[in-house]
Amino acid sequence: MRYSRLLLKTNKDAKQFDSVNATLLSQAGFIHQAMAGVYTFLPLGWRVLNKIENIIREEMDTVGAEMLMPAIVPTALWEQTGRLATVSVLMGTKPANEESRKRNDASYILNPTHEEVITPIAQRFKPSYKDLPFAVYQIQTKFRNEERPKSGLLRGREFRMKDLYSFHATQEDFQHYYDEVKEVYVRIFERLGLGNATVVALASGGDFTTEYSHEFDVRLEAGEDTVYYDERNDVHYNSEVAPAEVRERGDSFTVSEIGNTFPLGTKFSQAFAYTYRDAAGVMQPVIMASYGIGTSRIMGVLVEKFNDDRGMVWPAAVAPFTVHLLGLNAGKANVRERADTVYDQLQQAGVEVLYDDRPDISAGAALADADLIGVPWRAIVSEKTGDQIEVKARREQETRLVSAKGLFHLV
Amino acid sequence: MRYSRLLLKTNKDAKQFDSVNATLLSQAGFIHQAMAGVYTFLPLGWRVLNKIENIIREEMDTVGAEMLMPAIVPTALWEQTGRLATVSVLMGTKPANEESRKRNDASYILNPTHEEVITPIAQRFKPSYKDLPFAVYQIQTKFRNEERPKSGLLRGREFRMKDLYSFHATQEDFQHYYDEVKEVYVRIFERLGLGNATVVALASGGDFTTEYSHEFDVRLEAGEDTVYYDERNDVHYNSEVAPAEVRERGDSFTVSEIGNTFPLGTKFSQAFAYTYRDAAGVMQPVIMASYGIGTSRIMGVLVEKFNDDRGMVWPAAVAPFTVHLLGLNAGKANVRERADTVYDQLQQAGVEVLYDDRPDISAGAALADADLIGVPWRAIVSEKTGDQIEVKARREQETRLVSAKGLFHLV
Repeated sequence: MRYSRLLLKTNKDAKQFDSVNATLLSQAGFIHQAMAGVYTFLPLGWRVLNKIENIIREEMDTVGAEMLMPAIVPTALWEQTGRLATVSVLMGTKPANEESRKRNDASYILNPTHEEVITPIAQRFKPSYKDLPFAVYQIQTKFRNEERPKSGLLRGREFRMKDLYSFHATQEDFQHYYDEVKEVYVRIFERLGLGNATVVALASGGDFTTEYSHEFDVRLEAGEDTVYYDERNDVHYNSEVAPAEVRERGDSFTVSEIGNTFPLGTKFSQAFAYTYRDAAGVMQPVIMASYGIGTSRIMGVLVEKFNDDRGMVWPAAVAPFTVHLLGLNAGKANVRERADTVYDQLQQAGVEVLYDDRPDISAGAALADADLIGVPWRAIVSEKTGDQIEVKARREQETRLVSAKGLFHLV
Repeated sequence: MRYSRLLLKTNKDAKQFDSVNATLLSQAGFIHQAMAGVYTFLPLGWRVLNKIENIIREEMDTVGAEMLMPAIVPTALWEQTGRLATVSVLMGTKPANEESRKRNDASYILNPTHEEVITPIAQRFKPSYKDLPFAVYQIQTKFRNEERPKSGLLRGREFRMKDLYSFHATQEDFQHYYDEVKEVYVRIFERLGLGNATVVALASGGDFTTEYSHEFDVRLEAGEDTVYYDERNDVHYNSEVAPAEVRERGDSFTVSEIGNTFPLGTKFSQAFAYTYRDAAGVMQPVIMASYGIGTSRIMGVLVEKFNDDRGMVWPAAVAPFTVHLLGLNAGKANVRERADTVYDQLQQAGVEVLYDDRPDISAGAALADADLIGVPWRAIVSEKTGDQIEVKARREQETRLVSAKGLFHLV
């Protein structure tokens, strides 16, 4: 894609945010802050978010069917579980002006999570023991009334999330599936380039369950949570549930939570009387679990993990483009024509190219932008390169001269 | 995909809604009503919505770059244009309980459209005349405080929409692009199977512009709007703007609006002081336009247009699956094994198959479900078919016996 088609105007002097990810993503034109904790994903950022979500989608399709639940639902659903009063991040809707109020004065809930929505749907469509087990997921926008959202995409009032819900007749079946999802999560985080950085920690069940939940945490200095490692038993604990003796030994580090799994037990099925008749003819509440992954948060975590003093360094699987193409001093000689040709050749070969087609940009500014944006490969056409292309990987110093065909093979 | 993995339980006796689309989509397990005007897209319905949105995405990529703006934004943006008080469908947010209120008592706007959001972003990233023209779009969830939402997916409180925004320095450039988008719209509606049914009508600019807007309307008995045809000048008018003499001649029909284009002029650029310096050195407000397509509404319109007394009849381009595979009396002989084999063969050949793998369903119920769901091709394996497969198109009576290979060639 050509620079001129994107909403892309890098600005190294842009407002400094309180986090590396918000600062770099804003300076490089990936996101734009609408207010604290709420961001627009500009075309570059939207491409990254899409790639993250598509990797998650591919893996989730192996364990559940995708669907889409609404953002707003009746308050009665949240009354039914008692969470209307207790979930401290819960937001609702209201008419925004007098005319709107005259039309419809009702208030609805803006879902931060969808247990209250999926449970009665499951009850309607999967009423029998023969229908169990099953699982469904969605990738959707969520809302949380954060007091002071901070850390860029790490904590938002509006954010993107994948949420999976599973339903089981027996504890054994639940446990089997729960473990399978944990394996799928490991695959997802590996594909996203976070495999080595991720630990699984026991955590509080929060508003969801009285049992431990499991968190997938990325080691991160900017992370908001602290994890303690119990070396004797090889177990990680979120600080909120770490036993005193583990805390005292003090092997701890900060993390950002990118995924979680909640063994919900029968909390929600009991609230909605979602039961099935077991082999002995006795009605039993369905056993449930829910499983989240913060897709927009992962985008922030990736920036926090992979950057240097020149900008971002995207893992290939989620980079907005594979090649960043520049025509240096494109005003001169045949540089512009040659760069245009290389752009067409790469596009035709199916390579995802970001083409800096700005006519009056200085070489220094164009190269600095390429480093800031952090696409895996930089390709330069200039008077010096002749019929060749000067190619460099984002992290490397070394450049090499290759033909267009050589470039296809490289990337 | 196997039936058992979907949230799919057809129910011909399900609650009758006030519209054909809500009734059939609910009976067939495509959607589930959360409340008036708010629906969950169950896995079958989500597949259709996705196909509709991907066709639109492919075509929109030829005229703009995709991005994603937030659902909630500061009230100040809507104060800036004066629309905070005047848009009668506007909804806002509020804390949903006391704990939430203590955290953050602020209220935000839930966007029904995004002119107020995109204009200051465009101003930030495209400040110069050299940056014009450009265009960006998103496919996103929108909110409208409808008094009494009805007609299923035709009018919702929460719905899906594609919205494109374009920015121009001259009236000529605006007009050229505006006409280009109208051509893209024609292509989209043709691909969606609505080409013949769509007319372009002049309509009111509503809250957006004092000029005519253009509506893309599908002829539909259940439609909420009335269009008058002025035969002398070959022009269609929405009833709200039809001249008296055209109304009197009375050539009118009801429609549902699936797309619109608004020549916004400088209303929004002036409100945000989004200007550029022209060749003569004079500051000029940027000329804008916005262009909507209701993606979830199109799903409803397709059902209203394409159905018969047995159920829905999906156009191939948006059908949730291409083949609906049944093993009749699957309990008997080798029928189940053969149906499993055909399912695997079709999947491996890349055919999208819905496989009714229910072990204890009667032939009559399974065939009725296939008709209700309305996938283009029905394929039956039974004791009678031997090594062959009995294939029938949804609208046809005639069946034919083909091999698995023959089936690939057919679909």
